[in-house]
Amino acid sequence: MSRSVVAAMTAYTLELREAEIKLNQNESPFDFPRQFKERVLESMAERPWNLYPDFESTALRTAIAKAQDLAPENILVGNGSNELLAAAIGAFVGPGTPVVFPRPTFALYEKLVTIAGGLPIPIEFDPDSGLLPLDRMLEAITKHQDAVAIVCSPNNPTGGVLPAGGLDALLGSGAMVLLDRAYGDFDGVGAGVLAGPAGGTPAATLVTFRTFSKAWGLAALRVGWLTSTAENCREIRKVKLPYSLNVISEAIAALALENREIRDRNVARIVAERERVFAAMQSIPRIRVFPTRANFITFRTPRPLFDALWARGILVRDLSGYPRLQGCLRVSIGTREQNDAFLAALEEAL
Amino acid sequence: MSRSVVAAMTAYTLELREAEIKLNQNESPFDFPRQFKERVLESMAERPWNLYPDFESTALRTAIAKAQDLAPENILVGNGSNELLAAAIGAFVGPGTPVVFPRPTFALYEKLVTIAGGLPIPIEFDPDSGLLPLDRMLEAITKHQDAVAIVCSPNNPTGGVLPAGGLDALLGSGAMVLLDRAYGDFDGVGAGVLAGPAGGTPAATLVTFRTFSKAWGLAALRVGWLTSTAENCREIRKVKLPYSLNVISEAIAALALENREIRDRNVARIVAERERVFAAMQSIPRIRVFPTRANFITFRTPRPLFDALWARGILVRDLSGYPRLQGCLRVSIGTREQNDAFLAALEEAL
Repeated sequence: MSRSVVAAMTAYTLELREAEIKLNQNESPFDFPRQFKERVLESMAERPWNLYPDFESTALRTAIAKAQDLAPENILVGNGSNELLAAAIGAFVGPGTPVVFPRPTFALYEKLVTIAGGLPIPIEFDPDSGLLPLDRMLEAITKHQDAVAIVCSPNNPTGGVLPAGGLDALLGSGAMVLLDRAYGDFDGVGAGVLAGPAGGTPAATLVTFRTFSKAWGLAALRVGWLTSTAENCREIRKVKLPYSLNVISEAIAALALENREIRDRNVARIVAERERVFAAMQSIPRIRVFPTRANFITFRTPRPLFDALWARGILVRDLSGYPRLQGCLRVSIGTREQNDAFLAALEEAL
Repeated sequence: MSRSVVAAMTAYTLELREAEIKLNQNESPFDFPRQFKERVLESMAERPWNLYPDFESTALRTAIAKAQDLAPENILVGNGSNELLAAAIGAFVGPGTPVVFPRPTFALYEKLVTIAGGLPIPIEFDPDSGLLPLDRMLEAITKHQDAVAIVCSPNNPTGGVLPAGGLDALLGSGAMVLLDRAYGDFDGVGAGVLAGPAGGTPAATLVTFRTFSKAWGLAALRVGWLTSTAENCREIRKVKLPYSLNVISEAIAALALENREIRDRNVARIVAERERVFAAMQSIPRIRVFPTRANFITFRTPRPLFDALWARGILVRDLSGYPRLQGCLRVSIGTREQNDAFLAALEEAL
């Protein structure tokens, strides 16, 4: 009985397995500090739970705006950046709208475009290069009128990024650009705690998505935000559901922003570990490691290793179902101890 | 730059005003009990915040299934029932799909249908009757092939319900029926804590939506659920975003279900107050009160009274923007003291 495009879709799934060391979802290995947890939870016992959240999430939007040198009307917050991506696609992608995106990338984009009735135009690229296929994306945008482009940079699940000047080139193409910066904290682009293209006036054709799930270590709370022009925010807000951010998650995110050192320390530790693990993996001859600027490393193995790693207590992500990633695994960067255990298990499994 | 259907839409808005007594959003006047708040918040300090929620929300789905005598595969949980409504509309409504619904009703339905490219077929009805326009809905369903029907019973913002046998008639029509039971706790239909059409095998063409926001007094946390066949749940889940329920809201909802007396006491107090306030309002000659089975009362006033009530510290909902509700106000049922203050202010304002 469901629509044909939905009936034809496969569900977004996740292999659910228990493991001693969980490196399969690009989570931060560092929990939110206990004293901050307690502070916000105590205040939440006082807040009435029978009353809806603030209709406009003004407190959090104002805090984010201040941190990014923008105005609150340039910010929307949501129940994870996924919700905002879905709303933006609902606002800009209708039946037949051409949507250009690299592939392999985060599988949700193509699903959302399909649900919206848009025309997915995947640009297949070689994930070993560490770079997203900018030139061919620009060609496809030129070929199709009124295209929307979706880019995740650093890209999940390959780790690569847009080439230098890539965002400016995309913005120059005239396409509406939806830029997913879920992993942007780890690539060193831009300055300051909320790095990425921001500050001053946002470009008229750019919507940028960010999340508290990765660098801030708040995946359990589901908070994301987007930045764009006030006009784009108004249009996306028409599609977004009202009250989508619960009061506890909103309060936690606002407290996090007041304590940026949490995020900065996480990022410094994760990036340092990524470089160390990457170098160690590069010295293993039988695997091929893809360049990465994210908090994970994707690599090609000579034969299936997912189960062998799992048998050794390490849960990674099997990417074999993705186009061009047959025989590839993705390992999230964990604590030093977790990473060492992963490296030892990898050597053993090989 | 947004799609034409979105550009033409108005935003879902809410008049933001401060007031001593807030009776404008159909919230429960009773906060979640303090000892339960503290119990769940304490446990949440132990839960890692850096890790994503359970991919399938198994704990809460299992608890709801048990309470409703269904299986977990008949349940989806989400970030408020709005999220699930949006997902169900995404699963069943595509470009041109005829969607039959009463009007006036919850404005979100028509917005979501429009975004999905569906054909809205509103059935205007006289809200004074207290009954939804079943016969004319059935006619419209017969006239259009493969129609979807959306019904909110009790209906927001009018308070009326489907006539007796109405749901069976809708199910017999062959239409996919999306039944919003956000206010179902207050109408006495069905038995037990999770009243409504449920228990045993759900009908193949029925999706029922419920919420913790009203009777349970948990609007701040944003938790809703739907029940349907396992097949419908699988299809809707393809459209729903993954991880949409944060761990704290999920834990609170699960704890609530273990303590049904919270909901039962709220419902008993609110229904008793509704009957008392309704009778008091009926005795006021200059207003016309609509029959209601919800936790609010909608009424027509001889001249605008919204500001006069607000000046007396009472914030209600001005419904003048809704079709057929010019000059109407909606007041949520509050505590006995709040309701008395409202009644006094109403007499004064008149």
